[in-house]
Amino acid sequence: MSFDYFPTTTIFIGVAAFSALIACLYAFVLYKKVTKIKVNHQRIEEISSYIHEGAMAFMKRQYTIIIYFALGVGSLLALTELIPSLQGAEGVGWKAAIAFIFGALFSGLAGWIGMHAATKANSRTTSAANTGGMPSALRVAFSGGSVLGLTVVGLGLFGLTALFFIFYWVYGGNTGVPREQYLALTHAINTVTGYGLGASLIALFGRVGGGIFTKAADVGADLVGKVEAGIPEDDPRNPAVIADNVGDNVGDVAGMGSDLTESYIGSIISALTLGLYAFVTFTPQQVMDGIVTIDSSVLSGIFASVLYPLLIAGFGAISAVVAVWMIRRKDWHRPQFALSMSTYLAALVMLVTSLVLSHVLFDGVRAWGVFGAVTTGLFVGIGIGFIAEYYTSSDYKHVKEIANQSLTGHATNVIAGYSVGMLSTFLTVVVLVAGIVISYLFTGDMYGIALAAVGMLSTAGITISVDAYGPIADNAGGIAQMSKLDEGVRKITDKLDSVGNTTAAIGKGFCIGSAALTSIGLFFAFEKSAGLSDGRGIDILQPGVMVGVFIGAMLPFLFTSLVIKSVGRAANKMIDEVRRQFKEDPGIMEGTSLPDYARCVDISTKAALKEMILPAMIAVFSPIIAGVFLGAEGLGGLLVGGLVSAIMLAVFMANSGGAWDNAKKFIEEGNLGGKGSDAHKAAVTGDTVGDPFKDTAGPSMDILIKLMSIVSLIIVPILAQIEPILSFLFN
Amino acid sequence: MSFDYFPTTTIFIGVAAFSALIACLYAFVLYKKVTKIKVNHQRIEEISSYIHEGAMAFMKRQYTIIIYFALGVGSLLALTELIPSLQGAEGVGWKAAIAFIFGALFSGLAGWIGMHAATKANSRTTSAANTGGMPSALRVAFSGGSVLGLTVVGLGLFGLTALFFIFYWVYGGNTGVPREQYLALTHAINTVTGYGLGASLIALFGRVGGGIFTKAADVGADLVGKVEAGIPEDDPRNPAVIADNVGDNVGDVAGMGSDLTESYIGSIISALTLGLYAFVTFTPQQVMDGIVTIDSSVLSGIFASVLYPLLIAGFGAISAVVAVWMIRRKDWHRPQFALSMSTYLAALVMLVTSLVLSHVLFDGVRAWGVFGAVTTGLFVGIGIGFIAEYYTSSDYKHVKEIANQSLTGHATNVIAGYSVGMLSTFLTVVVLVAGIVISYLFTGDMYGIALAAVGMLSTAGITISVDAYGPIADNAGGIAQMSKLDEGVRKITDKLDSVGNTTAAIGKGFCIGSAALTSIGLFFAFEKSAGLSDGRGIDILQPGVMVGVFIGAMLPFLFTSLVIKSVGRAANKMIDEVRRQFKEDPGIMEGTSLPDYARCVDISTKAALKEMILPAMIAVFSPIIAGVFLGAEGLGGLLVGGLVSAIMLAVFMANSGGAWDNAKKFIEEGNLGGKGSDAHKAAVTGDTVGDPFKDTAGPSMDILIKLMSIVSLIIVPILAQIEPILSFLFN
Repeated sequence: MSFDYFPTTTIFIGVAAFSALIACLYAFVLYKKVTKIKVNHQRIEEISSYIHEGAMAFMKRQYTIIIYFALGVGSLLALTELIPSLQGAEGVGWKAAIAFIFGALFSGLAGWIGMHAATKANSRTTSAANTGGMPSALRVAFSGGSVLGLTVVGLGLFGLTALFFIFYWVYGGNTGVPREQYLALTHAINTVTGYGLGASLIALFGRVGGGIFTKAADVGADLVGKVEAGIPEDDPRNPAVIADNVGDNVGDVAGMGSDLTESYIGSIISALTLGLYAFVTFTPQQVMDGIVTIDSSVLSGIFASVLYPLLIAGFGAISAVVAVWMIRRKDWHRPQFALSMSTYLAALVMLVTSLVLSHVLFDGVRAWGVFGAVTTGLFVGIGIGFIAEYYTSSDYKHVKEIANQSLTGHATNVIAGYSVGMLSTFLTVVVLVAGIVISYLFTGDMYGIALAAVGMLSTAGITISVDAYGPIADNAGGIAQMSKLDEGVRKITDKLDSVGNTTAAIGKGFCIGSAALTSIGLFFAFEKSAGLSDGRGIDILQPGVMVGVFIGAMLPFLFTSLVIKSVGRAANKMIDEVRRQFKEDPGIMEGTSLPDYARCVDISTKAALKEMILPAMIAVFSPIIAGVFLGAEGLGGLLVGGLVSAIMLAVFMANSGGAWDNAKKFIEEGNLGGKGSDAHKAAVTGDTVGDPFKDTAGPSMDILIKLMSIVSLIIVPILAQIEPILSFLFN
Repeated sequence: MSFDYFPTTTIFIGVAAFSALIACLYAFVLYKKVTKIKVNHQRIEEISSYIHEGAMAFMKRQYTIIIYFALGVGSLLALTELIPSLQGAEGVGWKAAIAFIFGALFSGLAGWIGMHAATKANSRTTSAANTGGMPSALRVAFSGGSVLGLTVVGLGLFGLTALFFIFYWVYGGNTGVPREQYLALTHAINTVTGYGLGASLIALFGRVGGGIFTKAADVGADLVGKVEAGIPEDDPRNPAVIADNVGDNVGDVAGMGSDLTESYIGSIISALTLGLYAFVTFTPQQVMDGIVTIDSSVLSGIFASVLYPLLIAGFGAISAVVAVWMIRRKDWHRPQFALSMSTYLAALVMLVTSLVLSHVLFDGVRAWGVFGAVTTGLFVGIGIGFIAEYYTSSDYKHVKEIANQSLTGHATNVIAGYSVGMLSTFLTVVVLVAGIVISYLFTGDMYGIALAAVGMLSTAGITISVDAYGPIADNAGGIAQMSKLDEGVRKITDKLDSVGNTTAAIGKGFCIGSAALTSIGLFFAFEKSAGLSDGRGIDILQPGVMVGVFIGAMLPFLFTSLVIKSVGRAANKMIDEVRRQFKEDPGIMEGTSLPDYARCVDISTKAALKEMILPAMIAVFSPIIAGVFLGAEGLGGLLVGGLVSAIMLAVFMANSGGAWDNAKKFIEEGNLGGKGSDAHKAAVTGDTVGDPFKDTAGPSMDILIKLMSIVSLIIVPILAQIEPILSFLFN
């Protein structure tokens, strides 16, 4: 098919944008459906309003800070216009600043809406469990989660396609002259990279700040409430109980959602960039310099490569809509089955539509190649999820082994979990590397790897929906407990919650896998933009590259240490506050007076936002500093060192944490002495060690590597203008 | 000065060999001095003979297995002669096989002698503390450690120089024709690489097997003895007590010694190899092909570069002899001061002699350059040691913080220690990278980095002596306890032991730093041999290299997991055995019958040797497999990924482990509730978690990266002959 003239391109971009809008629309319908459910139970409403208000208070405070950050970064980007040598360079300048602001805006809006829906859906889930039983509770919780899932892909993709189209038009894409259309395309793609940076900013705050918030509240609530005061989990007398429930939303809804939004947008941007280089032997620079001329057939091929990832993402949004719609139609009594079905259904729709699309946009072998790359990504996502489940589920030997090691004490439990997490890197890396190799072979270049990332993340809509369902069900259980509802209601929410734990483990694997593939895609987009593969590449034998690799590999360790210390400090503040409230008002423990929930939420909020500043600075500034000192080559080394080190730590920490958690639950189910036994106490230690691993430090790794990659991609035009300070480290 | 004719070279090599012999001779004198001391105390003699016999039984069993391994690997190397395309290739073939066998033999012999001396010196130290007080006990323990230190550098260097000289002669170095002398030099250097592989084989068994042995015995003795039976540490009623004391020798004497021997020899070999490329623009291949002609002035310069590291090592041996001799002359009442003095003294002697040597072998700027590189290495070693001390000593805030976190429970203690270890990677990497950059700048190429490694390891003789002193003092304390000597004797040995703990922490930092620099040196030697820098280098943008980096970064995590699991399994066997003995013979607890010590030693021995097979296979075969599948480039990626990942894990685990240990000791000194408090229990958990970190997995990382590097260097000629199976991953 031919794509060399304006209307065809418009139609195809329009299809992607329209798909995104459908997802938004359906999210709106679901939001209305969820919120119009009447709760009719004063206690449920009260408790849930605390959670809702706490969560929105956190979001508001967080977004206020983000606005300052966004204006700062946006201004810096815009100000590069003043540097003569950077005028006209894309990726920086006022257009990139606009893209950046829109990226932050759309991504932030998606998070806001999703959070709103989730904290409305929790009480409705409790209420539905109370009045309608399992199927209707499941439907409400799943619908609540789907609002986030569909908004993320809908808004994220719509903003990206719209901006892309506008910039294409602004840069003169409607001239009908192949060369100018090609250059407009190049400029538009470079400019929308700023959109990805905007999503990254939201993800940085969402994931790292959210991770610190949720664990500070969790540890504070548990340590003083459960251990010191001896009151059960989710007891309304615990001043930190609302903060703990808010934390579930802040970490597992907003944090997870922003992480996958970043991956989703990052993967598309890397595929757009690499699409410019796919199946051709020239570079945009050569076209600009007039060395290569573009005719309409060449342009047609390039358009196909560039439009393909946008449309795959669009069909992904549709597949999520279809899956959610189908699942909602039936009364499910087995929640695990329903959630799995939704994922498989979406994947199936994706496979079929992308098969068709591949043959519309490409011919013959190439059509099968791009389809193969997308499919590879889908399977890698599923594969890494399964590996995470294998190492973290008590159905398999590893978690049982950790539980057994709890019999000999705290230390042996910790060592066993540590060892299982490290072991899990092996299979994960094997699958990831196989995915990289296979997707590369399918297209014969890096474009295939970027397509694999897009393919994996095409299911982001449904994956986020399923993931966000978990904390809603968890909250619903907490509300049921605090509202003193029947044992039967709690049973339903417990069942829903336990399914949520499995999906969370798989989801965490998916987040890591997608962050890895996206970062690799962005890395190759970076090197293409910087023109590194035209020269001598990124040669490890250059001392400057070696230095970059070393420092890059160290950063994830430093980052981990900092966020874990942050959790500790924030948790200590929470502990002090809970103790203070118990001490100053004995009525709280007696149940005669209400604790000050808002203050605990406030403490977690302030601590989370304050504590994330240093790690955030490291993530943002280390690539810039590396670029200035070591140049694009050394920065490339830094990215690769950081990438591999962060992936290993992310996998290790997520799986160790999940395995410890489930080993504890396995004992709590009555095995090896059950609750209260010495083995259980040891298992609680492991679980507590694992909490910041799996919910703060581990997920932060995803952000670290994506953010460093996208910052690097953004600063390419600046690096092209300066001589690295340590240039003597290159010969 | 001119080095282009045979006699001068001979004289200089002779100086290095002679220095090595002096070290051997002085080690022999010290051995005699130590062993001729009469113990005159039946109980001390009895206990120490158990330890001695246990240790030598382990060594014997281990060396029996090593002999099979050595014959196997040696045969494989020799058999490459049968492959037509490999005939005449150095690094493999029967000559390399001979070098390999000698490397294993000399390195093994040094370990054997050192172990013999250490397990003789322990009882003499106890006896000296009993009869002569602190100064004489210190002298005996230090002399015992010095036997290992001096034998390692003496035998290691003598074997290397002798072989090097013989091969130089065999390859026709005495012809007087510059080109032939140059080629003989090249061939001789490539061939003696096999000597390094021999040392690596010993180190693999010594460090990994020793690490598993020592922790299995330690955990077994503690868990059943201290925790279950409630008897104190080093109680003769504990069946595993001898195994525990043997373990100190096996891990901290033989293991540590073999690790530093490997670094020592590896660093010299990498400097020899890179010396061929230093300050010249041609490669040996170009000389062989006749593209470049060698005249006597060029040859002279190359000889200077090659002889320099050998002579630096020789002067290092002398400096150790001088330092040991000086320290032994005085009666020291402050052991910490005495040991520090010995290190500084040796470093000072090294600095002065290498300054003179630099100006003898090189002229002007170059002389200062090589001297600067050597000095940089010395300071990097000291710097990394100090950083290790900062993060692991209770004099500084981090360990105190861990102790404080013990107040809130097991989990917070574990998290705090974990976080401190990760944080310590930052400064360590900064110092390491600074060392790489500065030493590179001093010579303008990779030769400088290799010289820094040689400079750092030139102090190996004294570092090993000081390090090996620790377990001897520790053993002496155990023997005093088991022999029921006066409280006063135990006080002296406790003082000596506590100093040993500080030196052990610094020593561990030194081991890691030296392993890192040596591996980097070997890595660059590998790429030079493989001719990678002549082509496009090791370009991360090649998918095959990227795959290598990913897998390489994963291997240390897998390796860590495996050895930690091994410790767990071996410890369980020990626990079962100790319980069985207590149960079957109640007389043991009553003190009326003797436990079966030998059986516990036997269990640790068997378990250690069995459990190390899988990790050993991974270390040896992964570079070979990577080379076959991904070629030299991909293997280069694997090495770099493995290098950075292993260094981070080594630093993190060593420092976490050390910090936990000292946090526990800090509490035991009476702080935060002291012994028996809940905080103490939490601190014990951290210490137990840290044990396999710092004594098994962490040090194993050193071996992993050096072994992978040297195996890679060895297989270069084979890789040159084959097309990598996944060659389609390179474009």
